[in-house]
Amino acid sequence: MKLNDLGEFGIIAGIESKFLDLIPSGVTGIGDDCAVIPLEAGRSLLVTTDMLVEDIHFLRNDISPYDLGRKSMTVNISDISAMGAKPYAAFLSLALPVDIETEWVEKFSEGFRSHEIPLLGGDTTKSKSAIVVNVTVIGFSDDQNIKYRSGAKPGDKILVTGTLGDSAGGLKVITQKFVADEDSHKLIEAHHNPLSYVKPGEWLGGRLEVTAMMDISDGLASDLKHIIEASKVGTKIEINKLPISESLVKVANRNNWDYRSLAIEGGEDYVLLLTVSPESAEQLKKEYSSHTGLELYEIGKITSDRGLVVWLQDDIPLDTDYRGFDHF
Amino acid sequence: MKLNDLGEFGIIAGIESKFLDLIPSGVTGIGDDCAVIPLEAGRSLLVTTDMLVEDIHFLRNDISPYDLGRKSMTVNISDISAMGAKPYAAFLSLALPVDIETEWVEKFSEGFRSHEIPLLGGDTTKSKSAIVVNVTVIGFSDDQNIKYRSGAKPGDKILVTGTLGDSAGGLKVITQKFVADEDSHKLIEAHHNPLSYVKPGEWLGGRLEVTAMMDISDGLASDLKHIIEASKVGTKIEINKLPISESLVKVANRNNWDYRSLAIEGGEDYVLLLTVSPESAEQLKKEYSSHTGLELYEIGKITSDRGLVVWLQDDIPLDTDYRGFDHF
Repeated sequence: MKLNDLGEFGIIAGIESKFLDLIPSGVTGIGDDCAVIPLEAGRSLLVTTDMLVEDIHFLRNDISPYDLGRKSMTVNISDISAMGAKPYAAFLSLALPVDIETEWVEKFSEGFRSHEIPLLGGDTTKSKSAIVVNVTVIGFSDDQNIKYRSGAKPGDKILVTGTLGDSAGGLKVITQKFVADEDSHKLIEAHHNPLSYVKPGEWLGGRLEVTAMMDISDGLASDLKHIIEASKVGTKIEINKLPISESLVKVANRNNWDYRSLAIEGGEDYVLLLTVSPESAEQLKKEYSSHTGLELYEIGKITSDRGLVVWLQDDIPLDTDYRGFDHF
Repeated sequence: MKLNDLGEFGIIAGIESKFLDLIPSGVTGIGDDCAVIPLEAGRSLLVTTDMLVEDIHFLRNDISPYDLGRKSMTVNISDISAMGAKPYAAFLSLALPVDIETEWVEKFSEGFRSHEIPLLGGDTTKSKSAIVVNVTVIGFSDDQNIKYRSGAKPGDKILVTGTLGDSAGGLKVITQKFVADEDSHKLIEAHHNPLSYVKPGEWLGGRLEVTAMMDISDGLASDLKHIIEASKVGTKIEINKLPISESLVKVANRNNWDYRSLAIEGGEDYVLLLTVSPESAEQLKKEYSSHTGLELYEIGKITSDRGLVVWLQDDIPLDTDYRGFDHF
């Protein structure tokens, strides 16, 4: 069988299945954004790793080395923030074709450093053609603050920390080589330099009313499925409530794109997706705003219809099945 | 400037220099085989990461997926063992061209699992052409057992845990496409499936008379320089004492190779290189043998001639400067 037929999650499941009997007792988070490894005194170590491959995740001529360096770090610290923890340090492996200039590496390093996460090790090697970046980030957290995908309960509100679909819109602008106006540039910026939620993530980790959390990297449709599978629940999402940026609406309308599909199916927004006990949602939104200066957007709720995702428009179920993004 | 002119260590130094001010206090091991991060109660976390790129580190048609999986783990746990610690878990990132069969992934996973180190996370993605494997391994150790490159003292004996040059010899057999007899096969096996020293490494970690330790991945000449630079000492190596396998001698003699150069300059043997207080060396060798069933080979000593590497033959200095292996 070819890998295409299996897909990314199929491949991962196949590999993971061979290691189930080796998982040390007390380790959790397998299948979450990070592995969670128990330490002493109610503390845990969190570990995540992500690989970015040229021509798959980025095009060398489209993204600046600074943005690539910054994004390589952003996507990894996002996994730590998505569990309510604090990133502590990073490890970087870099495969570089020999025609890369040292200035490129210089700029990449500056971008990688821009989040001010310490780099404590890594590996550098030659590559025949593609640039490959692999980053591992570790974080620490008190056990009680760690948010898993499995904690959502029927009735919980579903919230996100930022607008959806901008990154996918930016990718469309880049690949379709549109003449970029100001709004298109904002979308490209969202794709090349997504926001990170380090302080918001850690703050949400400290809130007991947050029952589950993850980041949206594969798209809302795909990532929601992870939460409802892990939590053994269902969900209803009101698509009119999805936070969508003005820039995405404008660029989409001008080009006859469906911006809702981009918001639901597009990947790489790296906003946090969380579920909150219904009685605490309003208070949490207020406190979050005053602590972070940012907004939490309520987009739907968790139901007891296990495995079921219902997309509503003005409370009426849509006859649409949205899909997430798969790099295979 | 092109990367070739800078070399692997130049690139790493350039990146690292940007992060010096961010290193958290108490963290050590930067530039050693692993970063060492202090935890509670006199324990530390060790982290290492390594990237293997197709056509740079291996040829898809020459190494079986099982051996590649196993070696990807071996080279990483070797870094943990090299500091006297115990590997705890691994994280695997895999970039795979779509023409790879699922059976290949299956066999790779079996090899990766063969050391019985838990896999706790990772990333799988598509690649346009090359297979890329990145592995991060973490380990734990009592602080007092961790061996650094910086602990060698003048007078210390220098020892290695296994024969040198077999892996480089195997690579020569593979790339020069020799008809492989039994001895050549042993060298190929040493290249594709190097021994690991997990239990010996941990045991040596517990011995206070071991003053410095690392693994030989870039070749003895290159790695010795790391120890003498970190320890601010020099070294004298007796090349007649280098442990060289019968197979390497035979294959080398048949093909007019200089097996001593292979043993000194060849990389990827992944044996441990350690320095030991002179008065304890004999006793350590004995106890090591009875504990592990293996042998420690004494190859030279540490001197106070800072930065100086002297290669001796029958106690007479050679007029040769050996170099290590650089992937750039």
